[in-house]
Amino acid sequence: MKFKCELKKVVDDSYDIEIGHDLSKQLVEDIKNGLVGKIKRFAVISDSTVVDLYAQSIQNLIVQAGFTADLFVFPAGEKSKTRQTKEFVEDGMLAKGYRRDCCIIAVGGGVVTDLSGFVAGTFGRGVPFINFATTLLSAADASIGGKTAVDTPLATNLIGIFNQPKKVYLDIDTWKTLPQREISSGLSETIKHACLGDKDFFGYLEENIEKVFDYDTKTCEHIAYLNCKIKYSVVMQDELESGLREILNLGHTVGRAIETVSNYQLLHGEALSIGMIAQVKLGKELGFISEKNANRVLELYKRAKLPTEIPYYINKSELVKKLYTDKKIRDGKLRFVFQKEIGDTMCFGDNNYGKEISENKIAEIINTM
Amino acid sequence: MKFKCELKKVVDDSYDIEIGHDLSKQLVEDIKNGLVGKIKRFAVISDSTVVDLYAQSIQNLIVQAGFTADLFVFPAGEKSKTRQTKEFVEDGMLAKGYRRDCCIIAVGGGVVTDLSGFVAGTFGRGVPFINFATTLLSAADASIGGKTAVDTPLATNLIGIFNQPKKVYLDIDTWKTLPQREISSGLSETIKHACLGDKDFFGYLEENIEKVFDYDTKTCEHIAYLNCKIKYSVVMQDELESGLREILNLGHTVGRAIETVSNYQLLHGEALSIGMIAQVKLGKELGFISEKNANRVLELYKRAKLPTEIPYYINKSELVKKLYTDKKIRDGKLRFVFQKEIGDTMCFGDNNYGKEISENKIAEIINTM
Repeated sequence: MKFKCELKKVVDDSYDIEIGHDLSKQLVEDIKNGLVGKIKRFAVISDSTVVDLYAQSIQNLIVQAGFTADLFVFPAGEKSKTRQTKEFVEDGMLAKGYRRDCCIIAVGGGVVTDLSGFVAGTFGRGVPFINFATTLLSAADASIGGKTAVDTPLATNLIGIFNQPKKVYLDIDTWKTLPQREISSGLSETIKHACLGDKDFFGYLEENIEKVFDYDTKTCEHIAYLNCKIKYSVVMQDELESGLREILNLGHTVGRAIETVSNYQLLHGEALSIGMIAQVKLGKELGFISEKNANRVLELYKRAKLPTEIPYYINKSELVKKLYTDKKIRDGKLRFVFQKEIGDTMCFGDNNYGKEISENKIAEIINTM
Repeated sequence: MKFKCELKKVVDDSYDIEIGHDLSKQLVEDIKNGLVGKIKRFAVISDSTVVDLYAQSIQNLIVQAGFTADLFVFPAGEKSKTRQTKEFVEDGMLAKGYRRDCCIIAVGGGVVTDLSGFVAGTFGRGVPFINFATTLLSAADASIGGKTAVDTPLATNLIGIFNQPKKVYLDIDTWKTLPQREISSGLSETIKHACLGDKDFFGYLEENIEKVFDYDTKTCEHIAYLNCKIKYSVVMQDELESGLREILNLGHTVGRAIETVSNYQLLHGEALSIGMIAQVKLGKELGFISEKNANRVLELYKRAKLPTEIPYYINKSELVKKLYTDKKIRDGKLRFVFQKEIGDTMCFGDNNYGKEISENKIAEIINTM
């Protein structure tokens, strides 16, 4: 006896990204104007670095506006992006009486937005959340696109969900409080975006990249805008990564593995930089990018003050093994995304952007770096 | 500067529920015929009771069919429905090399299907799953409807997601291996369904309920079918519990709280039985159900061999406090769902099926039980 359950529906996860300066007041205005309906309780999630800089004052503004808000803070750093921290935040919220009628506001970089979006998606089977991104890296990457996750001891981002925020604020003023390493880390994803989807943007970065370190307003705004635009033109076509979205994984096969093997001594963007160079070297051998363009990519990463070689403390055979924790693996085989010259991505047949690469081949490249 | 991200899409989560006998061969046939596309790796999740009865043989059948399959087993019982068990299963799967190209098969009762569906929804940001329900309770409740979750120390089902399986198998033959307490527990949700949505079914149960204990095929099939039908007529209208679906929560405000306070000495259906009686008593006072119908409900629960009074070991003031962990809470106020006589549910205005009840009122009822 069969019973057909029809569950076909239209889902609208559309939302706004606001790019600007000193956006915390705008956030509170939006809440007052019904951004998340009639919700009156807000869990502000942040880390130990960002709490004093921005999260505390956002909480204050929300309370002053007549709502309830509590802070939930964990130690800064990728090492906090775990199931244990998720549990810590959840239990804190539950103990304070938070239930399904609340909204989560993530204030911080990628670790905070990735973790908070995941908490929001599973708290009482889902409450709305808002991202207030305080780093260039999260502006370029984590805060938009709806990928949320935590790491496991084995590798990064293995456990998570797709969950779209109600709104994203990219507050460029916050970049002023970032150390240079964090700015560079954000530029790493920025250059990746240019490599995979926009050669004019790559040219713009070649002309202007140093200005970001001086917080040149126009450059920062342009970069924030183009990161969103490139990322979204991809995500809108393939939200759930069944094909095209894999191109955003450019440089990440080696990048993520080295991030884990470094035990998070390398920031995400630093690890990605090395992964991008590995991809470019491999792509050059395979004829996907000319030597000249490969060098342009290498030069730009260097000017962004990012590492382009594998640090001495990385065990290279451990790194090769770690590649097998990649989510793009199919039937146990390694798959790589490649840029096509500059500003485009290789497609290997019907909606497939991952090329199978033998372990020997990638080990060879890694040994030259 | 604003950037609009358009993410509107049609999602089709439709699936089949198959009710029948000895369905494991059917499951393997369906996989061969592409139920989950080209996936070749299957993680069979089960508990220590069910593994020898059904899960092991399902794993064998899948391997014999030429696929890869591994067993992931945790201790039976509601106490295993935790974030720690979820982590244990995830790490086990990751260690065995499972990535996004796998499918999870949950073989067991509600604890197994709730936990497995949650694991599936977050493993690599989502892999497909199949429910093979081996208890009347899960056939009546957990295996269908797409609610997945784990408990926290504070209360049940607080952390989870909505996640629909690819198919559900309700294998009635498995009911024969259930102890009477488990059959009764399943009948508890069954009676609830009749109370909230189908007075003819209630009449049918009044005539036939004892036959379930004798595994009368026709009665079991009819019960399995009507549980699905009633639950689905609700879930299809409000999958994400923004209104109508709350009626499935009938009896659960007190039920879930007493389940937690009993430290899971009470099975879910046993706790629900007490919660249903509390609801009926309160409903009688409020004029939602006649004394005669209230007694019919009480009698039917007794005939299902379920407790209708609060056990001596329950601390009643702790129970009242625990009510505040309910997900239906709004603005800190307790809300109850009520049946309207037999076969219908009270609606309290626009799409609102939860009535605010003062703590005093419910404490009064609890003290009479």
